[in-house]
Amino acid sequence: MKQKRFLLTESEIPTQWYNIQADMPNKPLPPLHPATRQPLGVEDLAHIFPEECCKQELNTTDSFIDIPEPVLEKYKFYRSTPLVRAYELEKALGTPAHIYFKNESVNPLGSHKINSALPQCYYAKQEGTTNVTTETGAGQWGAALSYAASVFGLEAAVYQVKISMQQKPYRSSIMRTFGATVEGSPSMSTRAGKDIITKNPTHMGSLGTAISEAVELAMTTPGCKYTLGSVLNHVAIHQSIIGLEAEKQMEKAGEYPDMVIACFGGGSNFGGIAFPFMRHNILDGKTTEFIAAEPDSCPKLTRGKFDYDFGDEAGLTPLLPMFTLGHDFKPANIHAGGLRYHGAGMIVSQLIKDGYMHGVDIPQLETFEAGVLFARTEGIIPAPESSHAIAATIREALKCKETGEEKVILFNLSGHGLIDMTAYDQYICGDLQNYKVTDEEIAKNHIGV
Amino acid sequence: MKQKRFLLTESEIPTQWYNIQADMPNKPLPPLHPATRQPLGVEDLAHIFPEECCKQELNTTDSFIDIPEPVLEKYKFYRSTPLVRAYELEKALGTPAHIYFKNESVNPLGSHKINSALPQCYYAKQEGTTNVTTETGAGQWGAALSYAASVFGLEAAVYQVKISMQQKPYRSSIMRTFGATVEGSPSMSTRAGKDIITKNPTHMGSLGTAISEAVELAMTTPGCKYTLGSVLNHVAIHQSIIGLEAEKQMEKAGEYPDMVIACFGGGSNFGGIAFPFMRHNILDGKTTEFIAAEPDSCPKLTRGKFDYDFGDEAGLTPLLPMFTLGHDFKPANIHAGGLRYHGAGMIVSQLIKDGYMHGVDIPQLETFEAGVLFARTEGIIPAPESSHAIAATIREALKCKETGEEKVILFNLSGHGLIDMTAYDQYICGDLQNYKVTDEEIAKNHIGV
Repeated sequence: MKQKRFLLTESEIPTQWYNIQADMPNKPLPPLHPATRQPLGVEDLAHIFPEECCKQELNTTDSFIDIPEPVLEKYKFYRSTPLVRAYELEKALGTPAHIYFKNESVNPLGSHKINSALPQCYYAKQEGTTNVTTETGAGQWGAALSYAASVFGLEAAVYQVKISMQQKPYRSSIMRTFGATVEGSPSMSTRAGKDIITKNPTHMGSLGTAISEAVELAMTTPGCKYTLGSVLNHVAIHQSIIGLEAEKQMEKAGEYPDMVIACFGGGSNFGGIAFPFMRHNILDGKTTEFIAAEPDSCPKLTRGKFDYDFGDEAGLTPLLPMFTLGHDFKPANIHAGGLRYHGAGMIVSQLIKDGYMHGVDIPQLETFEAGVLFARTEGIIPAPESSHAIAATIREALKCKETGEEKVILFNLSGHGLIDMTAYDQYICGDLQNYKVTDEEIAKNHIGV
Repeated sequence: MKQKRFLLTESEIPTQWYNIQADMPNKPLPPLHPATRQPLGVEDLAHIFPEECCKQELNTTDSFIDIPEPVLEKYKFYRSTPLVRAYELEKALGTPAHIYFKNESVNPLGSHKINSALPQCYYAKQEGTTNVTTETGAGQWGAALSYAASVFGLEAAVYQVKISMQQKPYRSSIMRTFGATVEGSPSMSTRAGKDIITKNPTHMGSLGTAISEAVELAMTTPGCKYTLGSVLNHVAIHQSIIGLEAEKQMEKAGEYPDMVIACFGGGSNFGGIAFPFMRHNILDGKTTEFIAAEPDSCPKLTRGKFDYDFGDEAGLTPLLPMFTLGHDFKPANIHAGGLRYHGAGMIVSQLIKDGYMHGVDIPQLETFEAGVLFARTEGIIPAPESSHAIAATIREALKCKETGEEKVILFNLSGHGLIDMTAYDQYICGDLQNYKVTDEEIAKNHIGV
């Protein structure tokens, strides 16, 4: 019988994260202060974020960073996650490709987000913080942060995108179960939220609005730090545990990926699985192809502009050099809240410019078709976000069927979709549609001003 | 750093199930034909169940039964499941006890039920069946069966207890995602359902009503077999994979359980984790204590009578020798649908009579308090059913705190509660209550007539 799952023993779990910034031939451009347009230092960021996260954010010299012992201890609650060979999916597609997936859906709270929530809360606690706040789209990050805050004895306040709160009420319940406070964004509890609602009373929220509100709360509340689930460099560093494990696991499987695929919202799960492999493209002449799968309703990688832009809708964050659709871009209400973000992280944006990776945009219906096929073959109902990676994988596997190539494809199953059953119900009833954005809709938004 | 999780390699996964019937000093009394009151043979059961399941049901001679290769292959999608040392829960309780749990919540569909759904569907398919039907309480079994049916190319029709359908609409969506048909029970689609509704138009259903309807569908539909998620002996055989793995994993942890605890509805997850260890009480003089945790609103183990009774509300099944509250007992609408069943399995009933195990009944609020503590410490939101096992474990761990004993406690985390967030919400808002059943309520029900 062929081996299906590949696991690591606790002693094989990596004890360091990987920081691709140190190995990039062209470093990302620096984040700028929005008023002075001067590059930011650790001290400029540290009033919002835990200081250690700020240092990691700007660290372009250390390829590997030690995982603190208390974080490693919590990782061992659930890591390593399985690397799984998707034999049944391969069979259903009739492809000669070898499809592997890294199963982050079995983590506490059901997604990869916990990998960064734990260190962010640990550092916050170490530095004397009492409260943390954040935004959440699909709710995966908010749930993970609520748990991590409870683990390290912090109070948590979460701004959840309003549309996602309606689509997935269970996620708010999960956060409350861990003792967190949850507000729908845009809310009336911050100045940023009130401004947004005043301009657009029916605004259903986006990651951009929720970030504005959480940043404002952190800036105006003593002892409160802001945490972010994606986009930023330190998040990609923490998430590298996924790819570092996968590297060892692929070795156990006796293969090396020709392609690495992940869905793309701000880049946390993509960077997590991709960067440790991309390192070998940069340093060792490997030629793995890296594909970031985004919704065609929010296509910043494939149709955005590279420029300095704000990370949030209200313009409270530093200016970040990134592929963006404009910080006031309002993505359609697709059932993949984690991907409804206007910009890409600084690292990913530079890597795209330098040709190390590329994006692919996928219509909503294709993602659900892929998700249902995956569920019926591999037994796991994927998060609609993760279904973007599955759909991109299926496209590539079907190309292999055409050409007869036995390519090795690795994708990241970033989370399960058990909280997203309303969306599956709508799909099965034929009530979902595609929302490909037009060039006109993209053109009317604002970048960096 | 102390080891947290214990896993098996694929080659260490057991290739045989354990059948405690072969080792029991007193075999269970035989099931009887309801009309003739004569013991049933394989041929009497085989028009309802897959024949191989019937043989296993009545097998009192083989201690170990080979797991068919195609089933083992599917087991390897997700097995072994982790054995986890609950250090954080121990710390929160301040107990010297060593608490371990077997984590079946990371299985496809989120519970242990898949362990028996796969072989039942495999045998049905092998024997030429085209359709399977079943009942489901909490929906865990229905979801697992829907997936297993899709894996082996069978059509599935599921009768879901009406109250549970309202409490957990996502479970019906999950079943539909795998292509199953789902009906709320009691329904108007069967004679049994219509009879029940006629007598009691507001009947919110129970496992007893849903079994009646599924059995009727199987009996009246050519090519359709009935499958059951608990109660019966062959289900306990399939679920023994849990305890057989745990035995090897406890050995890796260098300990042996003084106590094994599981929640109890029909006995599938209890038998699964307990019987492989109980074997050593029967054969090798071990003195492990076995505790089945049931709701105090449905206390058949602690307050039921041992007698022949029907397995379903309408009286369509064979008469089974069991501890029962009466087949027309209507359990309160607690948020633990999987435990709302009037009777215990034949094996468990005999084992209780013979003093190998005992039940403990737990109020609803205590189970939710335990569930929230477990979530906040170990990071997994448990199914309300599983929280009964956690509550019983906490009681024992707190006794150890009193006495200073370092007992080794193993419990089964049969499933996660991500589909049960409505219940957690109600608990957190103070909207749940206890429903301890009175002696008068028990006395008015019917046993075996």
